[in-house]
Amino acid sequence: MKTRIIGLHDLARLVARVGLNALMDGIIERLARAFADPAFDRRDLRARGGLHYESPHLGLLEWMPHLARGRSATIKMIAYHPDNPTAYALPTVLGHIGRYDVRTGHLVALIDGVFPTALRTGAASAVASRILALPASETLGLIGAGAQAVTQTHAISRVLPIRRVLAFDIDPRVSKSFPDRTRFLGLDVRAAPLAEVEQSADVLCTVTSVAVGAGPVIEGRRLKDHVHINAVGSDFSGKWEIPCDVLKASLVCPDFPAQAVVEGECQQLGPAEIGPDILNLASSPESYASWRERRTVFDSTGFALEDHVALDFLLDMIQTHELGSDLEIESIPDDAQNPYDFLGDSARAG
Amino acid sequence: MKTRIIGLHDLARLVARVGLNALMDGIIERLARAFADPAFDRRDLRARGGLHYESPHLGLLEWMPHLARGRSATIKMIAYHPDNPTAYALPTVLGHIGRYDVRTGHLVALIDGVFPTALRTGAASAVASRILALPASETLGLIGAGAQAVTQTHAISRVLPIRRVLAFDIDPRVSKSFPDRTRFLGLDVRAAPLAEVEQSADVLCTVTSVAVGAGPVIEGRRLKDHVHINAVGSDFSGKWEIPCDVLKASLVCPDFPAQAVVEGECQQLGPAEIGPDILNLASSPESYASWRERRTVFDSTGFALEDHVALDFLLDMIQTHELGSDLEIESIPDDAQNPYDFLGDSARAG
Repeated sequence: MKTRIIGLHDLARLVARVGLNALMDGIIERLARAFADPAFDRRDLRARGGLHYESPHLGLLEWMPHLARGRSATIKMIAYHPDNPTAYALPTVLGHIGRYDVRTGHLVALIDGVFPTALRTGAASAVASRILALPASETLGLIGAGAQAVTQTHAISRVLPIRRVLAFDIDPRVSKSFPDRTRFLGLDVRAAPLAEVEQSADVLCTVTSVAVGAGPVIEGRRLKDHVHINAVGSDFSGKWEIPCDVLKASLVCPDFPAQAVVEGECQQLGPAEIGPDILNLASSPESYASWRERRTVFDSTGFALEDHVALDFLLDMIQTHELGSDLEIESIPDDAQNPYDFLGDSARAG
Repeated sequence: MKTRIIGLHDLARLVARVGLNALMDGIIERLARAFADPAFDRRDLRARGGLHYESPHLGLLEWMPHLARGRSATIKMIAYHPDNPTAYALPTVLGHIGRYDVRTGHLVALIDGVFPTALRTGAASAVASRILALPASETLGLIGAGAQAVTQTHAISRVLPIRRVLAFDIDPRVSKSFPDRTRFLGLDVRAAPLAEVEQSADVLCTVTSVAVGAGPVIEGRRLKDHVHINAVGSDFSGKWEIPCDVLKASLVCPDFPAQAVVEGECQQLGPAEIGPDILNLASSPESYASWRERRTVFDSTGFALEDHVALDFLLDMIQTHELGSDLEIESIPDDAQNPYDFLGDSARAG
C-alpha cells in the first residue's frame, strides 16, 4: 500500500497548471463550507502538543492533530526555530502534514506544511471578512508586511473589491519590498505610515511578530467605524496586537475559542465579551449582516481543522492532476505473523 | 533541503546486503549503550498521545515522541486497527517514523515504523536477557508464536547460546507455522504444550495478545529457578501475562517505570516490589550478576527511546549504503517574506 509523497516541485507544477487563485479560491470555499457544516463535531478539535527545547537553539516541534471522525485524520508537524534565519539561512518555520485513513491507520499522503498553512490562514481571514467586512471594502490595510501579509492580501482580494493596499512594517525594508511581493495581484499596493493605514483601512490585517508584552501594534484611535480587523499575529500567551478598548467596542469572533483565550486577542477579554466563533458566523452569516457597518475583529489563532480542510482540497487537486510520487513506506507483510516477510528472500539469508 | 524517504524496497535492499543479523546486532549494541549512557536524560522520556475512535472501526492513531536533547528528535506514528486483518487484509499495526534535526526542525528522514519496532522490541529483550539470564541458557520458550515471537527468538539467539526453541500458541496453526518463520535462524524450533515450555525454558518470552482481564498466560508452577522472563505482550491497562506470585518472587525490571505501572506487569506490583529499570541494569550489569541464578522478569512495554536508538542505527546503515530517495518536501523560500517564492515563475501567473 502506497503513500503519496508530494514534493515541492509537485506543488510548483500544480500552481503552474491551475494558478494560485484557483488554490486560494478553492480553500476559501472549502473552509466556508466546513465551518458551516452542522455535522462538524467540536469534540474533534484537539489541543496541539510538542517538544520544547533551548539547546542548541530555542526550538519548538509541535504536532497539530485533527480527526474528521469516520473519514480521515490530519497531523501537521510544525517547527519554530527563531534562530534559523541567522544561524542556517533557513526560515523560522518548517513543517509537513501527514494524512491518514482512519479506517486502517494508513499514511495516505505527506506534503509540505508551510505553504498549505499560509494559504489556509489567508483563506480563514477571507471567510471572516466576507461575513463581517463592508461588502464595498476597497482599502486593505496591513500592519506587518512579511510572509503572512502576502497571503492575507491575496485571500481578501479574492472576496472583496479591494483596489488599494496600504502596508506598514516596523522594518522599512520589509514595507518597501511588499509591493513587489504582491505584484502578481495587480493591485495598487504601497507602503504607508501606521497612522495612514489605520485611518484608511476598510479591512485591516495585523500580521506582526510583536514580542510578548510589547503589544498592541496599532493605536486604534482613528479606525473607521465599519473597520473589520483580522488579528492574525497573536499566537502566544502574553502576545496580542489589538488595543483592549478597540476589542471591547467591537464584535470579537475567535476561530477556536479555547485556544484564543490562551494565545489570541481573547486573552484580553472576559467570557461575556467574546462574540460568536467562526463556526457560528459561517453557519448563519446573515444573522451578523448588521455588523458589516460596525467594528468587528476576527481573532485568528489557527487550528488544525483549517489544515485538514486545506489538505482535503490540495489532495483532490494533486489527484486530479496526477502529481506526487507513490512510495511504499509502511511495512505490510503478506504473512502478518512474520515481521521479516516483506524482505522476501533476503530475510532467509540471515 | 531534502528529506530522505526510505521505502520498503530500500530496507529490503539493505537486508539483502548486510543480513538481518547485522541489523539486529547493531540495534542490540546501540540500545545497550544508550541505556547505559549517563548523559541520557530521563526527563526526555515523553508520554505518548493519540487519537482514539470507534467508527468506522475501532482505531488508535498514536504519536510517540523522543527528544535527544541538542541533537535530534524522533516521532513514531503508530496505528492500531484490530479489524484490519478481517476487513482489509491488512496488518493490525501500521506505522512510520520521522526523524528531525532539532537545530532547525527539518524533517531529515521518513521510514516505516513497524519493522524498526519489531527489531528494537526484540533487541530490548536481548539487552535485558544478556544481563539477567543464565549465560549458559540453551532453551528459549515462547508463549505466543506470532510476529513478535520471531524477533524475540532472533534477538535472544544473538546474545545467548540458544540451541532449542519451544513455542506455544493458543492458535495451533500459529504454533505450527512458527518453525518455518524462524527457519533462517538454523535452530531446533518446535511447537510444544504450555507445560513443557514453562518447565524447559531457561529464557521465556511472553508475547501474546491476551485480552484485558484474561491474563495471566502461564501457570508459573514449574518454572526453572533461574528462569528469565521477557514479558512483552502487555500494553494496556488491565492486561498482563505473568502471575502475580511469580512477579513477587522475582526481580522485576521495567523498561520505562512510569509506563509499566500503567500498562505493564508492574500494574500488579506496589512501588517497593518493582526492581531497577533497564537503564539501571545496563549502567551496572555486574551489580545484578547474582540474579542470573534466580528468577527475573523484564517488563517490556516499549518506549520511544528505543525507536530513536534503532532509527539512529538504521539511518547510519542507510547512509553508508546510499539507500533511500532524497525529496524536497518542506517549503524553504529564498525570500522568507514571500510564501509563494518557491513556486518561481508560476506564482506570478496568478
